[in-house]
Amino acid sequence: MLFHVEMEVRIPHDLPAAEADAIKAREKAYAQDLQRQGKWVHLWRVAGRYANISVFDVESVDELHTILSSLPLFPFMDIRVTALARHPSAI
Amino acid sequence: MLFHVEMEVRIPHDLPAAEADAIKAREKAYAQDLQRQGKWVHLWRVAGRYANISVFDVESVDELHTILSSLPLFPFMDIRVTALARHPSAI
Amino acid sequence: MLFHVEMEVRIPHDLPAAEADAIKAREKAYAQDLQRQGKWVHLWRVAGRYANISVFDVESVDELHTILSSLPLFPFMDIRVTALARHPSAI
Amino acid sequence: MLFHVEMEVRIPHDLPAAEADAIKAREKAYAQDLQRQGKWVHLWRVAGRYANISVFDVESVDELHTILSSLPLFPFMDIRVTALARHPSAI
Amino acid sequence: MLFHVEMEVRIPHDLPAAEADAIKAREKAYAQDLQRQGKWVHLWRVAGRYANISVFDVESVDELHTILSSLPLFPFMDIRVTALARHPSAI
Amino acid sequence: MLFHVEMEVRIPHDLPAAEADAIKAREKAYAQDLQRQGKWVHLWRVAGRYANISVFDVESVDELHTILSSLPLFPFMDIRVTALARHPSAI
Amino acid sequence: MLFHVEMEVRIPHDLPAAEADAIKAREKAYAQDLQRQGKWVHLWRVAGRYANISVFDVESVDELHTILSSLPLFPFMDIRVTALARHPSAI
Amino acid sequence: MLFHVEMEVRIPHDLPAAEADAIKAREKAYAQDLQRQGKWVHLWRVAGRYANISVFDVESVDELHTILSSLPLFPFMDIRVTALARHPSAI
Amino acid sequence: MLFHVEMEVRIPHDLPAAEADAIKAREKAYAQDLQRQGKWVHLWRVAGRYANISVFDVESVDELHTILSSLPLFPFMDIRVTALARHPSAI
Amino acid sequence: MLFHVEMEVRIPHDLPAAEADAIKAREKAYAQDLQRQGKWVHLWRVAGRYANISVFDVESVDELHTILSSLPLFPFMDIRVTALARHPSAI
Repeated sequence: MLFHVEMEVRIPHDLPAAEADAIKAREKAYAQDLQRQGKWVHLWRVAGRYANISVFDVESVDELHTILSSLPLFPFMDIRVTALARHPSAI
Repeated sequence: MLFHVEMEVRIPHDLPAAEADAIKAREKAYAQDLQRQGKWVHLWRVAGRYANISVFDVESVDELHTILSSLPLFPFMDIRVTALARHPSAI
Repeated sequence: MLFHVEMEVRIPHDLPAAEADAIKAREKAYAQDLQRQGKWVHLWRVAGRYANISVFDVESVDELHTILSSLPLFPFMDIRVTALARHPSAI
Repeated sequence: MLFHVEMEVRIPHDLPAAEADAIKAREKAYAQDLQRQGKWVHLWRVAGRYANISVFDVESVDELHTILSSLPLFPFMDIRVTALARHPSAI
Repeated sequence: MLFHVEMEVRIPHDLPAAEADAIKAREKAYAQDLQRQGKWVHLWRVAGRYANISVFDVESVDELHTILSSLPLFPFMDIRVTALARHPSAI
Repeated sequence: MLFHVEMEVRIPHDLPAAEADAIKAREKAYAQDLQRQGKWVHLWRVAGRYANISVFDVESVDELHTILSSLPLFPFMDIRVTALARHPSAI
Repeated sequence: MLFHVEMEVRIPHDLPAAEADAIKAREKAYAQDLQRQGKWVHLWRVAGRYANISVFDVESVDELHTILSSLPLFPFMDIRVTALARHPSAI
Repeated sequence: MLFHVEMEVRIPHDLPAAEADAIKAREKAYAQDLQRQGKWVHLWRVAGRYANISVFDVESVDELHTILSSLPLFPFMDIRVTALARHPSAI
Repeated sequence: MLFHVEMEVRIPHDLPAAEADAIKAREKAYAQDLQRQGKWVHLWRVAGRYANISVFDVESVDELHTILSSLPLFPFMDIRVTALARHPSAI
Repeated sequence: MLFHVEMEVRIPHDLPAAEADAIKAREKAYAQDLQRQGKWVHLWRVAGRYANISVFDVESVDELHTILSSLPLFPFMDIRVTALARHPSAI
């Protein structure tokens, strides 16, 4: 089951750089692990923004929320989820 | 799997009344049938508006979209879907 | 009388973690107590967000506001209330 | 129980004038009757707009919705309801 | 002359509690004084929010602004004013 | 007493041209008469839009609403009123 | 080069059904042809809406606009394009 | 003096095609004439939309408004103007 | 050449009061000087807000931006500029 | 390939002035270098705002994002990208 997810990152400017870098490194490892598992099936950067557009393939909404709320950057993100259905013209 | 659905109805004022009434009658029968099946688990009227807030319990997003796009009033509705997960404080 | 309530939580990142944890623990206990009393009748997590969609069953708007403004997380929440009426197609 | 209600009227320009006038006359009678009953406790015109801000005093949300959806102009109105509680500084 | 005023309060979480409490106490006294003078004719709490909806009866816009900008909570409020006229259906 | 008024005109494209022209001619005469009376003290065109920004000087909100709702183009306008007070730095 | 495209369809209710059906049939054929060419790489239905979220892979913005403005449903669509870049965490 | 202008075209679907085509042909001739005069200095299509982003070089706001309100498509356009100043980093 | 300018002031609550007062004093002197020069031709307070609506009469957009960006409160303001043209019904 | 880019700068008021000045100096040098390379083809100041409207000419969206995300002010900017196509009426 596919979900379209937009994530916008807003790291407070007074978060110490070392702390921010550590979070980002964990975020990257986490994102790559989920891609390898086939859960995070698309991950694109929105041009000009610290943001991404992603598609997740999960068994349930609970699984999706568990994945998203475990993102190391979750406390600094604004996330919007859109449920996707099969399009009748898709081949 | 639960989805929160807001439906706002906007019937054009120049739709013949008989046609509008027939659509509304089919909508009601359809809505009640889905409630009996346990798919449309909550259906509330938004006070002051020709709108409802509903919760659906479906197997998949495809099933949800099939149900919603088959609503007799679908061509006259603005629908927003929000995916719901279990809340950790829910008992 | 039913009210639909959306709550979005925004805890400032510079709130000490121990303080935030204590507030969240009180919030959980409070939410579960209200559920047991039959006041907080539905509580769902919005997928991907630190937010919930809830339904309260109260005697009056005053009771609703007293409940909501007593939430331990109230100072950090953006809350929207929608009054719900019986839907003519509800069974 | 008090509810704040904003009503914006948008009558389609191709509705025959006689029909529009008849609806407005019924609307006025209906509004004045509800004021006399003590249900429609405040009714103000928003300066510059075909709109009003009102306060209703009702027993329940169901009663409020029944009143509002029975407005002769209801099909041509955009209505927003806000639930009001007692303010701790009100005397 | 009546004006509809919506006030939303946003007190920064790092304002010392004693300072916030002192401001709120002065706000309450000020609001009650204006009510006794017949200037602040309605004051309602918006359910679920640290906000109010009010109606003021003043001689002029200058008087209204003087009253509002003197609110002890003014620096922490977002205020919207709507000018009210007599409604032709009001009795 | 001054009020800032924004007016946006949206004439339906299927209104007969002769009817639209007649309304506009009456609008112009009405606007110029009010300017001569000193009620409509400023009238500017918003560049690129069929819209204006105006300032009215009236005795009361009731007078303002009577003037605005009597505009020949009123049924085709979206109007927003902002109450103006004296600015402490104005000379 | 990838572009994220959201398309919302709004067919006027007074468009004759036969005409609407003919346009939709051409839209489907066109969409499937572009998918076979590898230009329209993803096509998902937004649950509950007559809308889709798509990703196109094109040589240039001019090619993208030529494709989109040639959609049989283009006159009835609201389309938003977002330029996508490679995400540094994508594998 | 430069002004940034966004134009969005919305031609009603029930405008006869011949009439629409005639307006568009006049629009094109008019746009090209203004470009040759050096008034309409940039004209770009917004990808995926019946819209453009333009820059005009004019002597005054009055000249700009005269040009824009004379566009054959003006009655069907939503136009937004942004005044541009020299940027200190521009070379 | 006239420009309509809306300025909303948001001074951070943790700016020392003495510093804020000094900036406001300079702002007032600057505003009054520009009014005496005939550049800042109207200056009104928006009732209920720390905001103003102004009209400037300048030779060019560059002059306007120089004036606005030199406002002592500029770093704490949200400013919106609207270009004004002569209205055909203005006398 | 052209992209329209709007950049709004919001530097936190508690960033030390020396740090802010150093970032702005690097931003200026970077912007001028990209203009000399023919990548940043237009750069205008939005009157009244700490914002610009720009047009970039790049080989790909990846190149655009690399340029934008390397802006020294990038962490303090809100950036919106619009893909531009050739306009059929452009000469």
